Amino acid sequence: MLEDKNEGKTSISDLGEFGLIEHLTGHFKLYQNSSIKGVGDDAAVISGDSKQLNVVTTDLLVEGVHFDLGYMPLKHLGYKAVMVNLSDVYAMNAEAAQITVSIAVSNRFPVEALEELYAGIKTACDLYRIDLIGGDTTSSRSGLIISITALGRANKNELVYRSGAKESDLLVVSGDIGAAYLGLQVLERERQVFQVNPNAQPDLEPYSYLVERQLKPEARKDIVQLLKELKVKPTSMIDISDGLSSEIIHLCKASNVGCQLFEDKIPLDPQVISTCEEFNLDSTTIALSGGEDYELLFTIGIDDYPKIKGNPNLTVIGHMTQEKEGIHLVTRADTKIPIIARGWNSFPE
Amino acid sequence: MLEDKNEGKTSISDLGEFGLIEHLTGHFKLYQNSSIKGVGDDAAVISGDSKQLNVVTTDLLVEGVHFDLGYMPLKHLGYKAVMVNLSDVYAMNAEAAQITVSIAVSNRFPVEALEELYAGIKTACDLYRIDLIGGDTTSSRSGLIISITALGRANKNELVYRSGAKESDLLVVSGDIGAAYLGLQVLERERQVFQVNPNAQPDLEPYSYLVERQLKPEARKDIVQLLKELKVKPTSMIDISDGLSSEIIHLCKASNVGCQLFEDKIPLDPQVISTCEEFNLDSTTIALSGGEDYELLFTIGIDDYPKIKGNPNLTVIGHMTQEKEGIHLVTRADTKIPIIARGWNSFPE
Repeated sequence: MLEDKNEGKTSISDLGEFGLIEHLTGHFKLYQNSSIKGVGDDAAVISGDSKQLNVVTTDLLVEGVHFDLGYMPLKHLGYKAVMVNLSDVYAMNAEAAQITVSIAVSNRFPVEALEELYAGIKTACDLYRIDLIGGDTTSSRSGLIISITALGRANKNELVYRSGAKESDLLVVSGDIGAAYLGLQVLERERQVFQVNPNAQPDLEPYSYLVERQLKPEARKDIVQLLKELKVKPTSMIDISDGLSSEIIHLCKASNVGCQLFEDKIPLDPQVISTCEEFNLDSTTIALSGGEDYELLFTIGIDDYPKIKGNPNLTVIGHMTQEKEGIHLVTRADTKIPIIARGWNSFPE
Repeated sequence: MLEDKNEGKTSISDLGEFGLIEHLTGHFKLYQNSSIKGVGDDAAVISGDSKQLNVVTTDLLVEGVHFDLGYMPLKHLGYKAVMVNLSDVYAMNAEAAQITVSIAVSNRFPVEALEELYAGIKTACDLYRIDLIGGDTTSSRSGLIISITALGRANKNELVYRSGAKESDLLVVSGDIGAAYLGLQVLERERQVFQVNPNAQPDLEPYSYLVERQLKPEARKDIVQLLKELKVKPTSMIDISDGLSSEIIHLCKASNVGCQLFEDKIPLDPQVISTCEEFNLDSTTIALSGGEDYELLFTIGIDDYPKIKGNPNLTVIGHMTQEKEGIHLVTRADTKIPIIARGWNSFPE
């Protein structure tokens, strides 16, 4: 046990399971009219609406697999865990409304650590107007496990699946990609420097955007709203969690189409380009395989192109083709290379 | 790695994360009209209904904390993990309709082990007509973690909370209690015998009911239906997961009432009584604190008593009182003992 390190810290067993839930969630506000009953009964209760469809998504984050508390502050982890789930709701072109949060935690975590985690969850809920309506809090034998389920809504005609892309549709991505993965590489390098020389002062300033994209990603609620304002309904959509190449393959397989992705169109932040040079990495490979960007990748009919043209938040990076033409990257040298999924995989071979 | 033991077994990494999900869930049927889109997109989609409310509940089960694969076969574990969640939906007097299942699993589990787990989940889904609509499959550093979220529905006027119990309401429990906890004690003893003498053949016949209650509990969907048929709407309800005493305290606190529980009314199976004698345990203590019974505990107005009187599935075990009178067990010797929560707690002191 960590008695020395945790002097003045509160043990979870001092509060008990029910006291802990109340302590961590009692001060959360409810924003959504549809949240009838939140934490505190056998189940939460949400009002129905026959004009809208409900969407449900869930993610499980495991310490040592999905995050490393060596460089991920608990408050950021709480925020990011919510974003990961909201991103899936927005990828359906839906509005997110509620989450449940379950955690399993070993007794090396004092109550104060969980307060940090829930502070990040609360910041996310307040900013995105999401209601925490339930969850489970239990012990684990080792490490921290976070399971979040997010619920959202959309009008029936607004919902966008992965499967609606048509031949000749344009492939569009929001924001820029590759930065979150590079942020992780920067943090990993700084940790190694610190292990060799604990007095080294890291200068993260040249990598500030990369580190922020890794530690505090934002789900693109704003893009869903922007598309509504532009009166553009994507024909298919997915969020970029595992990596651009993997997500393109998902869209193509679900829609039975092929794709041509143009290397020179992929939006990269200047820090991504400079840091790739410094680390001697190929920026296209990073953009294709990096993952954790939580940008939206979608297709639109060619008729909608004028509505998005020149919008700084959106970049056309390719177009869909007949399925038999396959899925290719068209390089700057104008050669075609088949795209294969090299995104993040929690089950490495 | 377990190369020798797993000869002919398939490694999870052979399938990859997406192949694994398809392999484990591709053959599940959808029973509910409300399930519009199941596994395979960023989120599942469920139809709305303005006349009904949706209920949502979630539970996280951790190997070594909630279950021990030393005596819990994976198929039973899958079944029980679903039951634990459905039980919470039924405790709202709602119908369960959908679940999401997320698992984190270390690479000591071959695909065949996960097939067993999902076979149990599928048996539960088929029997209770529940749709598996989503989830997440990832790796863990140690052991198996299962996170299930269950969704259900009820008409607005049918929903029952913990908070509606009134002074003079009767306290009713379905089935009998204490058996699941004793089943665990029996299995634990058999394992210890086996460790000393691997040739010992366990005779579980005298404990068959106890072991079944531990390994294959049933959520009381039938009791929710029975109450509808009897035209009884409970004033408050909860399911018995942690233990009778703990659940009674939850109902009393949420409803601002007290309670008198009568020791001689607590329904016990004959195997519970005989095994308590054999193990030198007090059967009332087991019934109060054992947990994992997944029976329904509810209160009804005194006017509804004739409707349930004599029903073999339901037992009146006490009545609610003014809050200031407190929460007491009235013993067979007619003395009053305050009830304190001694139910199962995953955070032992």
